[in-house]
Amino acid sequence: MSTAPKGFRFATACAGFRKEGRADLALLVSDVPAVAAGTFTQNRFPAAPVLVAKAMLAERPAARAVVINSGQANACTGDEGMRNCRTTQELVASALGLEASDILPASTGVIGAQLKMDLWEKAAPALAANLGKATPEDFARAIMTTDAFHKISHREVSLPGGVVKLVGMAKGAGMICPNMATMLSVVLCDAQVEASVWQKMLRDAVELTFNRVTVDGDTSTNDTLYGLANGASGVSASDEESLKALSAALTSVLGDLAYMLVKDGEGASKVARIHVTGAASDADAERVARTVGHSQLVKTALYGRDANWGRIVAAVGRSGADFNPDDVVVTLCGVELFRKGQPTDLDFDALLEEPLKQRDLPIDIVLGSGSGSYTLLASDLGHEYVNVNADYRS
Amino acid sequence: MSTAPKGFRFATACAGFRKEGRADLALLVSDVPAVAAGTFTQNRFPAAPVLVAKAMLAERPAARAVVINSGQANACTGDEGMRNCRTTQELVASALGLEASDILPASTGVIGAQLKMDLWEKAAPALAANLGKATPEDFARAIMTTDAFHKISHREVSLPGGVVKLVGMAKGAGMICPNMATMLSVVLCDAQVEASVWQKMLRDAVELTFNRVTVDGDTSTNDTLYGLANGASGVSASDEESLKALSAALTSVLGDLAYMLVKDGEGASKVARIHVTGAASDADAERVARTVGHSQLVKTALYGRDANWGRIVAAVGRSGADFNPDDVVVTLCGVELFRKGQPTDLDFDALLEEPLKQRDLPIDIVLGSGSGSYTLLASDLGHEYVNVNADYRS
Repeated sequence: MSTAPKGFRFATACAGFRKEGRADLALLVSDVPAVAAGTFTQNRFPAAPVLVAKAMLAERPAARAVVINSGQANACTGDEGMRNCRTTQELVASALGLEASDILPASTGVIGAQLKMDLWEKAAPALAANLGKATPEDFARAIMTTDAFHKISHREVSLPGGVVKLVGMAKGAGMICPNMATMLSVVLCDAQVEASVWQKMLRDAVELTFNRVTVDGDTSTNDTLYGLANGASGVSASDEESLKALSAALTSVLGDLAYMLVKDGEGASKVARIHVTGAASDADAERVARTVGHSQLVKTALYGRDANWGRIVAAVGRSGADFNPDDVVVTLCGVELFRKGQPTDLDFDALLEEPLKQRDLPIDIVLGSGSGSYTLLASDLGHEYVNVNADYRS
Repeated sequence: MSTAPKGFRFATACAGFRKEGRADLALLVSDVPAVAAGTFTQNRFPAAPVLVAKAMLAERPAARAVVINSGQANACTGDEGMRNCRTTQELVASALGLEASDILPASTGVIGAQLKMDLWEKAAPALAANLGKATPEDFARAIMTTDAFHKISHREVSLPGGVVKLVGMAKGAGMICPNMATMLSVVLCDAQVEASVWQKMLRDAVELTFNRVTVDGDTSTNDTLYGLANGASGVSASDEESLKALSAALTSVLGDLAYMLVKDGEGASKVARIHVTGAASDADAERVARTVGHSQLVKTALYGRDANWGRIVAAVGRSGADFNPDDVVVTLCGVELFRKGQPTDLDFDALLEEPLKQRDLPIDIVLGSGSGSYTLLASDLGHEYVNVNADYRS
């Protein structure tokens, strides 16, 4: 039995945008119109498909299909890029017997080049003909660019009315992809849910997951998440209990994918879970978490397996958050490093030698100023990062 | 003839804070009380000497001497660190026949360890006995930690009343020093200048120089700049013309030192001069410059000699500054890369192959929204950075 939500079919095709013989077009179609929601990059240079999709969803929160190409981002491509994006919707819609306005587009790949429309014309009918022959895994593989592995997460949720399923697929090696424009994700659900409720549920889940990971803070021009709920399970999620369960499952799926993005950060070997509590506000906690998570000194120390509390403390100190330095406590992998303005008496190097070899490194920071909190996942910074990002175009 | 301002003498000593036989104590004494000003780190965990010196200068903007040790930062050392700092002032004052309140202290080195007071007790008399035997160059060498070269800059300025001299010394490999706490600088002048005027002149010059460089944005716990003006030239700077000339020379000396900090950024091979104009405000221009200058993707591209305009544009787009994307123009080493929302038709790789081999790389960003501007010097990010910062404590 398929683990995918009911009423969705998948297809991939090799259009030749990147390499011969590699699937670089991914399509999913809902058998019936699905409630559709999206969240998009905040970058001031949004890609053409971002602009097109935002306008579509603002007009009508529904869709039948999502088509994603990898290899070309269609970002920084001007009016021609906008026209090309609409043409790809028409090509796919026509091959499927749908309307262009039924098709949500997304692109990922090199910024600045126009889409290869001749390849799209050839590939669209083949893509439509393949519908039903691919799995969500195939879809997740076809949208990869420099990803080391494909990213997928499933959940089944028992609601009072019955079981509904969720599947999420994502691509992106953190937010760091060199010239690749970057994070794309689709989450599918077969519950019946009202459009505005689904949109809010998606936004809330993103705030708790994708918006709390960082590789290098470089927000791309293409970041897009689509959520489609087609109701094909026949199970309605409208009562409070159902919505709570569905929301938890959705957050859990997106949390899985967000973790995978950081784990796959190009050149990353570590995933730091920076947990800040006791802040004067949640915003202050976020400031501290982001300053620590973006600090090159902290990131290189994690890579070097160095119990370097001084770099964490210095980052906390320059974050701009409000606190009393004497109240701050910093704990790394369960070992308390810093309290009352100075290092504790523990033998950090001995205690942390083994924990720092693990992939997952919890960093707990207590500010002692209030009840604000925030958690951020951050990658480390090592030689492979420099290799990938300095040598990408050569 | 010495190029140093009149009325200052210098000494160094090997106390053994770091390695045997390396000068790690630096002293300068003004023959007469000098007008003294300071600017200090904004970090919420300021080092003990920062706290001591801020209190001193708030009470009385004057000093006779500056003593700096390298090897130990005396940061995150609690009350004991404060007591130790005051004891070092007393030790040096006593050896010189001065008061503790005449001595401005500064420390740089590893964070979190208490000062080795036994070494201070032994070294203070030797340091005082050496007074007059060292040059400003020796002073600049003794305050180095991981610096690849010592940093010094001289100016002579003809004022209406005669010639005055300035010399500035600094240490720091950018703001990036691993566990080393980080930027220290002293600028000396033999002009007669009023304390509040000198303080403002110094603050303004810092805002245009040291505050506009970045290696990784990691502001340290110890950053300190002292400015001493002792009037020993007998030349007064009080009229508008003199103050303007002196201010320009001071800014020029600090600009030299700030450039050297970025050039010496551990592992840095490039100095990018990011010049943002046409912003809605100076603050917006600064936002853009800092976002570009801190972007790991831009920094690795500069290291890789990659004309990667997409990374610059994406950083501009996420900076939070207000502008119309179609009005933005990005120029790298004089070659216009991006205009009207898309790349220009130039052959970037051919045009930029040679310029990108240079150390100094101008990046000009025009936003087309107003008259705000900002300039930031930023280092690149390469393998040597990771080497130095991942392996520092091992």
